[in-house]
Amino acid sequence: MSFCSLCGAGTLLRIPPGDNLPRQVCSHCGHIHYENPRLIVGCIAEWQGRILLCRRAIEPRLGYWTLPAGFMENGETTADAARRETIEEAGAQVDIDAAFAIVSIAHINQIHLFYRGQMRTPAYQAGEESLEVGLFLPDDIPWHDLSFRSVKLCLEAYLADRRCGNFGFHEHELHPDPGAL
Amino acid sequence: MSFCSLCGAGTLLRIPPGDNLPRQVCSHCGHIHYENPRLIVGCIAEWQGRILLCRRAIEPRLGYWTLPAGFMENGETTADAARRETIEEAGAQVDIDAAFAIVSIAHINQIHLFYRGQMRTPAYQAGEESLEVGLFLPDDIPWHDLSFRSVKLCLEAYLADRRCGNFGFHEHELHPDPGAL
Ligand SMILES: [Zn+2]
Ligand SMILES: [Zn+2]
Repeated sequence: MSFCSLCGAGTLLRIPPGDNLPRQVCSHCGHIHYENPRLIVGCIAEWQGRILLCRRAIEPRLGYWTLPAGFMENGETTADAARRETIEEAGAQVDIDAAFAIVSIAHINQIHLFYRGQMRTPAYQAGEESLEVGLFLPDDIPWHDLSFRSVKLCLEAYLADRRCGNFGFHEHELHPDPGAL
Repeated sequence: MSFCSLCGAGTLLRIPPGDNLPRQVCSHCGHIHYENPRLIVGCIAEWQGRILLCRRAIEPRLGYWTLPAGFMENGETTADAARRETIEEAGAQVDIDAAFAIVSIAHINQIHLFYRGQMRTPAYQAGEESLEVGLFLPDDIPWHDLSFRSVKLCLEAYLADRRCGNFGFHEHELHPDPGAL
Protein backbone atom coordinates (compact mmCIF):
# COMPACT_ATOMS: atom_id res chain seq x y z
CA MET A 1 0.00 0.00 0.00
CA SER A 2 1.24 3.42 -0.92
CA PHE A 3 -0.07 6.96 -0.34
CA CYS A 4 -0.27 10.16 -2.38
CA SER A 5 2.37 12.74 -1.43
CA LEU A 6 0.01 15.58 -2.43
CA CYS A 7 -3.23 14.61 -0.62
CA GLY A 8 -2.46 11.56 1.56
CA ALA A 9 -5.11 9.31 -0.06
CA GLY A 10 -4.25 5.76 -1.10
CA THR A 11 -2.67 5.13 -4.50
CA LEU A 12 -3.38 2.33 -6.99
CA LEU A 13 -0.95 0.75 -9.43
CA ARG A 14 -2.40 1.74 -12.82
CA ILE A 15 -1.13 2.39 -16.34
CA PRO A 16 -1.99 6.06 -16.94
CA PRO A 17 -3.52 7.05 -20.33
CA GLY A 18 -0.78 7.47 -22.95
CA ASP A 19 1.74 5.61 -20.77
CA ASN A 20 2.88 2.02 -21.05
CA LEU A 21 4.08 1.23 -17.52
CA PRO A 22 2.13 0.91 -14.27
CA ARG A 23 2.54 3.86 -11.87
CA GLN A 24 1.23 4.66 -8.39
CA VAL A 25 -1.81 6.82 -9.25
CA CYS A 26 -3.72 8.64 -6.49
CA SER A 27 -7.27 7.29 -6.02
CA HIS A 28 -8.45 10.74 -4.89
CA CYS A 29 -6.59 13.51 -6.75
CA GLY A 30 -5.25 11.47 -9.68
CA HIS A 31 -1.63 12.54 -9.18
CA ILE A 32 0.80 10.17 -10.91
CA HIS A 33 3.87 9.25 -8.84
CA TYR A 34 6.78 8.46 -11.15
CA GLU A 35 9.80 6.65 -9.81
CA ASN A 36 13.08 7.18 -11.57
CA PRO A 37 16.63 5.89 -11.18
CA ARG A 38 18.86 7.83 -8.84
CA LEU A 39 22.17 9.33 -9.79
CA ILE A 40 25.16 8.72 -7.50
CA VAL A 41 28.07 11.04 -8.27
CA GLY A 42 31.63 10.41 -7.18
CA CYS A 43 35.15 11.64 -7.71
CA ILE A 44 38.61 10.24 -8.40
CA ALA A 45 40.73 12.90 -6.73
CA GLU A 46 44.48 12.78 -7.14
CA TRP A 47 47.41 14.33 -5.29
CA GLN A 48 50.88 13.77 -6.80
CA GLY A 49 49.95 10.40 -8.28
CA ARG A 50 48.07 9.21 -5.19
CA ILE A 51 44.31 8.58 -5.18
CA LEU A 52 41.98 9.68 -2.42
CA LEU A 53 39.92 6.88 -0.83
CA CYS A 54 37.55 6.76 2.15
CA ARG A 55 36.74 3.83 4.42
CA ARG A 56 32.97 3.67 4.84
CA ALA A 57 31.50 4.40 8.27
CA ILE A 58 27.99 3.49 7.10
CA GLU A 59 26.16 0.55 5.59
CA PRO A 60 26.16 -0.87 3.01
CA ARG A 61 29.76 -2.09 2.90
CA LEU A 62 30.74 -0.53 6.23
CA GLY A 63 34.51 -0.74 6.70
CA TYR A 64 35.31 -1.07 3.00
CA TRP A 65 37.24 1.48 0.94
CA THR A 66 35.48 3.65 -1.59
CA LEU A 67 35.75 6.76 -3.72
CA PRO A 68 33.97 9.82 -2.31
CA ALA A 69 30.45 9.52 -3.79
CA GLY A 70 26.82 9.99 -2.92
CA PHE A 71 23.31 10.76 -4.10
CA MET A 72 23.05 13.87 -6.19
CA GLU A 73 20.98 16.66 -4.60
CA ASN A 74 18.44 18.95 -6.22
CA GLY A 75 19.82 22.33 -7.25
CA GLU A 76 23.35 21.23 -8.10
CA THR A 77 25.23 20.23 -11.24
CA THR A 78 26.89 16.82 -11.54
CA ALA A 79 30.32 18.46 -11.08
CA ASP A 80 28.99 20.33 -8.00
CA ALA A 81 27.94 16.97 -6.56
CA ALA A 82 31.40 15.48 -7.14
CA ARG A 83 33.08 18.43 -5.39
CA ARG A 84 30.56 18.36 -2.52
CA GLU A 85 30.93 14.64 -1.85
CA THR A 86 34.72 14.96 -1.84
CA ILE A 87 34.47 17.68 0.80
CA GLU A 88 31.79 15.92 2.88
CA GLU A 89 33.32 12.44 2.94
CA ALA A 90 37.03 13.16 2.64
CA GLY A 91 37.44 16.79 3.77
CA ALA A 92 39.32 17.53 0.56
CA GLN A 93 39.00 20.35 -1.98
CA VAL A 94 39.13 19.10 -5.56
CA ASP A 95 39.36 20.90 -8.90
CA ILE A 96 37.34 18.86 -11.38
CA ASP A 97 38.99 18.01 -14.71
CA ALA A 98 36.23 16.08 -16.49
CA ALA A 99 33.61 13.37 -16.26
CA PHE A 100 35.35 10.01 -16.37
CA ALA A 101 32.89 7.10 -16.22
CA ILE A 102 29.22 6.24 -16.06
CA VAL A 103 28.01 2.91 -14.69
CA SER A 104 24.41 1.72 -15.11
CA ILE A 105 23.19 -0.68 -12.44
CA ALA A 106 19.69 -1.32 -13.74
CA HIS A 107 18.67 -3.95 -11.15
CA ILE A 108 19.01 -1.43 -8.30
CA ASN A 109 17.83 1.62 -10.29
CA GLN A 110 21.13 3.43 -9.91
CA ILE A 111 23.48 5.32 -12.22
CA HIS A 112 26.99 5.98 -10.90
CA LEU A 113 28.80 8.91 -12.49
CA PHE A 114 32.46 9.50 -11.61
CA TYR A 115 34.49 12.63 -12.21
CA ARG A 116 38.27 12.97 -12.11
CA GLY A 117 40.10 15.91 -10.60
CA GLN A 118 43.11 17.25 -8.75
CA MET A 119 43.27 17.97 -5.05
CA ARG A 120 44.17 21.60 -4.37
CA THR A 121 46.25 20.70 -1.31
CA PRO A 122 47.19 17.35 0.27
CA ALA A 123 44.78 18.07 3.15
CA TYR A 124 42.01 15.58 3.93
CA GLN A 125 39.92 14.59 6.93
CA ALA A 126 37.35 11.86 7.48
CA GLY A 127 33.77 13.18 7.35
CA GLU A 128 30.80 11.74 9.25
CA GLU A 129 30.32 8.92 6.74
CA SER A 130 34.00 7.88 6.73
CA LEU A 131 36.06 5.95 9.30
CA GLU A 132 39.32 7.12 7.77
CA VAL A 133 40.66 8.67 4.57
CA GLY A 134 43.94 8.10 2.76
CA LEU A 135 45.98 8.81 -0.36
CA PHE A 136 47.06 5.63 -2.18
CA LEU A 137 49.60 4.83 -4.85
CA PRO A 138 48.17 2.27 -7.33
CA ASP A 139 49.94 -0.72 -5.76
CA ASP A 140 48.80 0.30 -2.27
CA ILE A 141 45.09 0.57 -3.11
CA PRO A 142 43.21 -1.99 -0.96
CA TRP A 143 41.97 -3.83 -4.07
CA HIS A 144 40.43 -6.68 -2.06
CA ASP A 145 38.62 -4.37 0.34
CA LEU A 146 36.86 -2.05 -2.10
CA SER A 147 33.22 -1.19 -1.44
CA PHE A 148 31.50 -1.59 -4.78
CA ARG A 149 32.16 -3.05 -8.22
CA SER A 150 31.62 0.36 -9.81
CA VAL A 151 34.48 1.77 -7.71
CA LYS A 152 36.82 -1.05 -8.72
CA LEU A 153 35.96 -0.71 -12.43
CA CYS A 154 36.47 3.00 -12.24
CA LEU A 155 39.85 2.82 -10.49
CA GLU A 156 41.11 0.20 -12.97
CA ALA A 157 40.02 2.25 -15.97
CA TYR A 158 41.52 5.40 -14.46
CA LEU A 159 44.93 3.85 -13.82
CA ALA A 160 44.98 2.24 -17.28
CA ASP A 161 44.20 5.60 -18.91
CA ARG A 162 46.78 7.36 -16.77
CA ARG A 163 49.48 4.92 -17.88
CA CYS A 164 48.56 5.72 -21.52
CA GLY A 165 48.56 9.44 -20.79
CA ASN A 166 45.10 9.80 -22.31
CA PHE A 167 41.83 9.91 -20.37
CA GLY A 168 38.67 8.79 -22.13
CA PHE A 169 35.05 8.60 -20.99
CA HIS A 170 34.04 5.10 -19.95
CA GLU A 171 30.72 3.28 -19.83
CA HIS A 172 29.88 0.12 -17.96
CA GLU A 173 26.80 -1.89 -17.09
CA LEU A 174 26.69 -4.01 -13.97
CA HIS A 175 24.38 -6.99 -13.57
CA PRO A 176 23.43 -8.94 -10.43
CA ASP A 177 26.41 -10.88 -9.11
CA PRO A 178 25.60 -11.95 -5.54
CA GLY A 179 28.94 -13.68 -5.03
CA ALA A 180 31.08 -10.72 -5.93
CA LEU A 181 31.61 -7.18 -4.73
CA MET B 1 1.62 20.35 2.90
CA SER B 2 2.98 16.99 1.92
CA PHE B 3 2.17 13.41 2.92
CA CYS B 4 4.14 10.25 3.62
CA SER B 5 4.11 7.73 0.77
CA LEU B 6 4.45 4.84 3.25
CA CYS B 7 1.74 5.65 5.83
CA GLY B 8 -0.23 8.67 4.52
CA ALA B 9 0.47 10.86 7.58
CA GLY B 10 1.60 14.47 7.16
CA THR B 11 5.28 15.23 6.69
CA LEU B 12 7.36 18.06 8.18
CA LEU B 13 10.35 19.79 6.63
CA ARG B 14 13.21 18.84 8.99
CA ILE B 15 16.96 18.29 8.83
CA PRO B 16 17.38 14.60 9.75
CA PRO B 17 20.20 13.66 12.19
CA GLY B 18 23.52 13.40 10.34
CA ASP B 19 22.12 15.27 7.33
CA ASN B 20 22.64 18.92 6.41
CA LEU B 21 19.60 19.66 4.24
CA PRO B 22 15.90 19.83 5.14
CA ARG B 23 13.83 16.84 3.96
CA GLN B 24 10.16 15.91 4.15
CA VAL B 25 10.13 13.68 7.25
CA CYS B 26 6.99 11.73 8.21
CA SER B 27 5.44 12.95 11.49
CA HIS B 28 4.11 9.44 12.17
CA CYS B 29 6.53 6.77 10.91
CA GLY B 30 9.65 8.94 10.55
CA HIS B 31 10.31 7.96 6.93
CA ILE B 32 12.61 10.46 5.17
CA HIS B 33 11.52 11.43 1.65
CA TYR B 34 14.55 12.36 -0.42
CA GLU B 35 14.10 14.25 -3.65
CA ASN B 36 16.78 13.86 -6.28
CA PRO B 37 17.41 15.25 -9.74
CA ARG B 38 15.91 13.34 -12.63
CA LEU B 39 17.86 11.98 -15.54
CA ILE B 40 16.55 12.64 -19.06
CA VAL B 41 18.22 10.45 -21.67
CA GLY B 42 18.19 11.18 -25.38
CA CYS B 43 19.80 10.09 -28.63
CA ILE B 44 21.44 11.64 -31.67
CA ALA B 45 20.57 9.01 -34.26
CA GLU B 46 22.06 9.29 -37.73
CA TRP B 47 21.22 7.80 -41.11
CA GLN B 48 23.66 8.51 -43.95
CA GLY B 49 24.69 11.88 -42.53
CA ARG B 50 21.14 12.92 -41.62
CA ILE B 51 19.99 13.41 -38.03
CA LEU B 52 16.69 12.16 -36.65
CA LEU B 53 14.48 14.84 -35.08
CA CYS B 54 10.93 14.79 -33.71
CA ARG B 55 8.41 17.62 -33.54
CA ARG B 56 6.89 17.65 -30.07
CA ALA B 57 3.19 16.77 -29.70
CA ILE B 58 3.26 17.59 -25.97
CA GLU B 59 4.04 20.50 -23.69
CA PRO B 60 6.46 21.98 -22.89
CA ARG B 61 7.58 23.35 -26.27
CA LEU B 62 4.75 21.74 -28.23
CA GLY B 63 5.40 22.08 -31.96
CA TYR B 64 9.18 22.51 -31.63
CA TRP B 65 11.80 20.09 -32.92
CA THR B 66 13.77 17.92 -30.54
CA LEU B 67 15.98 14.89 -30.24
CA PRO B 68 14.23 11.72 -29.04
CA ALA B 69 14.59 11.93 -25.24
CA GLY B 70 12.70 11.32 -22.04
CA PHE B 71 12.82 10.45 -18.36
CA MET B 72 14.84 7.39 -17.57
CA GLU B 73 12.81 4.48 -16.16
CA ASN B 74 13.69 2.16 -13.30
CA GLY B 75 15.21 -1.14 -14.40
CA GLU B 76 17.03 0.09 -17.49
CA THR B 77 20.54 1.25 -18.32
CA THR B 78 21.20 4.72 -19.72
CA ALA B 79 21.82 3.20 -23.19
CA ASP B 80 18.56 1.21 -22.88
CA ALA B 81 16.76 4.49 -22.20
CA ALA B 82 18.29 6.12 -25.30
CA ARG B 83 17.22 3.18 -27.49
CA ARG B 84 13.73 3.08 -25.96
CA GLU B 85 13.06 6.79 -26.41
CA THR B 86 14.19 6.60 -30.05
CA ILE B 87 11.70 3.81 -30.66
CA GLU B 88 8.86 5.41 -28.67
CA GLU B 89 9.12 8.94 -30.04
CA ALA B 90 10.55 8.37 -33.51
CA GLY B 91 9.70 4.73 -34.35
CA ALA B 92 13.36 4.14 -35.23
CA GLN B 93 15.80 1.39 -34.24
CA VAL B 94 19.20 2.72 -33.26
CA ASP B 95 22.52 1.02 -32.55
CA ILE B 96 24.22 3.05 -29.82
CA ASP B 97 27.86 4.05 -30.39
CA ALA B 98 28.66 5.93 -27.15
CA ALA B 99 27.57 8.54 -24.64
CA PHE B 100 28.07 11.95 -26.19
CA ALA B 101 27.09 14.76 -23.81
CA ILE B 102 25.81 15.50 -20.32
CA VAL B 103 24.03 18.74 -19.49
CA SER B 104 23.32 19.79 -15.89
CA ILE B 105 20.32 22.09 -15.47
CA ALA B 106 20.49 22.64 -11.73
CA HIS B 107 17.62 25.14 -11.45
CA ILE B 108 15.11 22.58 -12.71
CA ASN B 109 16.78 19.55 -11.05
CA GLN B 110 17.45 17.85 -14.36
CA ILE B 111 20.41 16.10 -15.97
CA HIS B 112 20.23 15.53 -19.71
CA LEU B 113 22.39 12.72 -21.07
CA PHE B 114 22.65 12.24 -24.84
CA TYR B 115 23.94 9.20 -26.68
CA ARG B 116 24.98 9.01 -30.32
CA GLY B 117 24.17 6.09 -32.60
CA GLN B 118 23.35 4.81 -36.05
CA MET B 119 19.89 3.99 -37.33
CA ARG B 120 19.64 0.37 -38.47
CA THR B 121 17.32 1.27 -41.35
CA PRO B 122 15.96 4.62 -42.62
CA ALA B 123 12.51 3.74 -41.20
CA TYR B 124 10.87 6.10 -38.73
CA GLN B 125 7.36 6.93 -37.60
CA ALA B 126 5.95 9.55 -35.23
CA GLY B 127 5.09 8.10 -31.81
CA GLU B 128 2.34 9.39 -29.50
CA GLU B 129 4.49 12.26 -28.23
CA SER B 130 5.56 13.44 -31.70
CA LEU B 131 3.63 15.37 -34.37
CA GLU B 132 6.12 14.36 -37.06
CA VAL B 133 9.61 12.93 -37.43
CA GLY B 134 12.28 13.68 -40.01
CA LEU B 135 15.91 13.11 -41.05
CA PHE B 136 17.82 16.38 -41.47
CA LEU B 137 21.10 17.34 -43.08
CA PRO B 138 22.95 19.92 -40.92
CA ASP B 139 21.85 22.92 -42.99
CA ASP B 140 18.24 21.76 -42.96
CA ILE B 141 17.95 21.40 -39.17
CA PRO B 142 15.26 23.82 -37.94
CA TRP B 143 17.78 25.69 -35.79
CA HIS B 144 15.31 28.43 -34.85
CA ASP B 145 12.56 26.01 -33.92
CA LEU B 146 14.44 23.69 -31.56
CA SER B 147 12.78 22.67 -28.31
CA PHE B 148 15.46 23.11 -25.65
CA ARG B 149 18.88 24.68 -25.22
CA SER B 150 20.36 21.29 -24.33
CA VAL B 151 19.24 19.94 -27.71
CA LYS B 152 20.81 22.88 -29.58
CA LEU B 153 24.11 22.60 -27.67
CA CYS B 154 24.21 18.90 -28.29
CA LEU B 155 23.53 19.15 -32.05
CA GLU B 156 26.17 21.88 -32.45
CA ALA B 157 28.81 19.86 -30.56
CA TYR B 158 27.91 16.74 -32.53
CA LEU B 159 28.24 18.39 -35.93
CA ALA B 160 31.52 20.09 -34.91
CA ASP B 161 32.95 16.75 -33.76
CA ARG B 162 31.73 15.03 -36.91
CA ARG B 163 33.51 17.59 -39.09
CA CYS B 164 36.75 16.86 -37.15
CA GLY B 165 36.20 13.12 -37.50
CA ASN B 166 36.61 12.68 -33.73
CA PHE B 167 33.79 12.40 -31.20
CA GLY B 168 34.49 13.45 -27.62
CA PHE B 169 32.33 13.48 -24.50
CA HIS B 170 30.91 16.91 -23.75
CA GLU B 171 29.74 18.60 -20.58
CA HIS B 172 27.59 21.67 -20.23
CA GLU B 173 25.79 23.54 -17.49
CA LEU B 174 22.69 25.60 -18.25
CA HIS B 175 21.51 28.48 -16.09
CA PRO B 176 18.17 30.29 -16.10
CA ASP B 177 17.72 32.33 -19.28
CA PRO B 178 14.05 33.26 -19.54
CA GLY B 179 14.46 35.09 -22.84
CA ALA B 180 16.09 32.23 -24.69
CA LEU B 181 15.22 28.70 -25.67
ZN1 LIG C 1 -3.64 12.54 -4.18
ZN1 LIG D 1 4.93 7.78 7.36
